[in-house]
Formats: sequence, C-alpha cells, structure tokens
Amino acid sequence: MTFDPATLTFTSDGLIPAIAQDAVSGDVLMMAWMNADAIARTLETGRVTYWSRSRQAFWVKGESSGHVQKLVDFRIDCDRDCLLVLVEQTGPACHTNRRSCFYTAVREGAEVELMKPVE
Amino acid sequence: MTFDPATLTFTSDGLIPAIAQDAVSGDVLMMAWMNADAIARTLETGRVTYWSRSRQAFWVKGESSGHVQKLVDFRIDCDRDCLLVLVEQTGPACHTNRRSCFYTAVREGAEVELMKPVE
Repeated sequence: MTFDPATLTFTSDGLIPAIAQDAVSGDVLMMAWMNADAIARTLETGRVTYWSRSRQAFWVKGESSGHVQKLVDFRIDCDRDCLLVLVEQTGPACHTNRRSCFYTAVREGAEVELMKPVE
Repeated sequence: MTFDPATLTFTSDGLIPAIAQDAVSGDVLMMAWMNADAIARTLETGRVTYWSRSRQAFWVKGESSGHVQKLVDFRIDCDRDCLLVLVEQTGPACHTNRRSCFYTAVREGAEVELMKPVE
C-alpha cells in the first residue's frame, strides 16, 4: 500500500510526535514533532527533519550542530498518531551534549543523572 | 534531588507523552499519555498506568488483557516534557496483539507490515 501522510492523525496544530531510536544500540534518543511536510522531507532526503514548535520552522536535526540523524527506518504505530524513526545518530542527540535526552531517571523518589555530556 | 511531578511540563490538557520500551529487547513498544496522578500511580505500584484520553480514566496497562507492564526504570527527558518507561512486558503491548504498536514501516513509499499478531 502506498504511504500517504494524509492518513496519519495529527494534533489540532497539524503535528505528530516522532520518537528517535538509535538503530544500532536501540537507545531511545529523543522525542520531537513533525508535520506532514517534515515527514515528506525526512522520507525524501533521508535526513530526519522535525518541526520546531518554538521556532515555527523546519528543524533539520544537526543542521547547525552537525549531530545529524540519518534515517534508517520509518515506522507508524497502530493508531497512526505516533512515529518511530530509527536513525544513525552522529554525535550526541541531546542539546545538552548527552547521547540521549532521557538521561534522568527517577529511582526511589529521587532524580538520578545517568549520563554526562560527552567531551 | 527529590522528584516532584509538578516540575514536569504538561500539555494544556495536563498530559505528558510516555514512551514504553522493552527493558530486555530494547524494542519501542508503544506511546501513550500520563497525567500527574498516573505518574504517581506508576511509581507507587510499579505497574505502568496511563491516562486514557478516549475514556478519560486511568488505564492500568493490561488490567483487562493481562498484558501488563512492570516498571523497570522511569526516565525524563531534558525538556521535562516527555517520559520514557522501561518495562517488563507480559504478552503483546499492542491491542492488535502484536508485540509492538510500531509494526508498520514506510519503505520506498509503501507501507510494509513488519510483525504479525502473536498466536
């Protein structure tokens, strides 16, 4: 079946959450948002492109930092309201310079830092 | 630092997305939503509990199906607006009886089914 982004369920703002997972390690790296055009650009270019809600602009991941995400596989969930992109991540995914944005755990009621910024 | 759910960023509906990842295989299983009370229940009981937007009620994952999620680790992202729960998943996570909700890939413009429902 041909994929048509119009068959996805977007929020009232025209967005859909996209989870980025490291295709090699399996680590969940980050979650950001795409709109229909960002999805089309991601599939066409093979470079993961989000929609920045704060800047209201396309966000080609790594365009300024060099920490690009090369698309390895693009997946849709059962409800068609969430995306999973498997990526080849160059450098850290997080703007704090950590490998993953999910570097804080909650254990026994306290926050624990799991990762330090990479050098 | 003591964890306080009030320090998280919720949507205007009081919700935060929660990604569930299989703690053993690393597979991303599903994405659903929690509110502050669902977070508290998840941490207190060790059974992953979402907020069902359609039913407007707590959704103790697997309560009716038996396909429960035992909490292994609870993580927060850098922006504090997304959660990652590592889980021990009993049975399939998806309501379609597939291991993961992300069973559809988009490859060369076409949708490809990656997983069949488990027997």
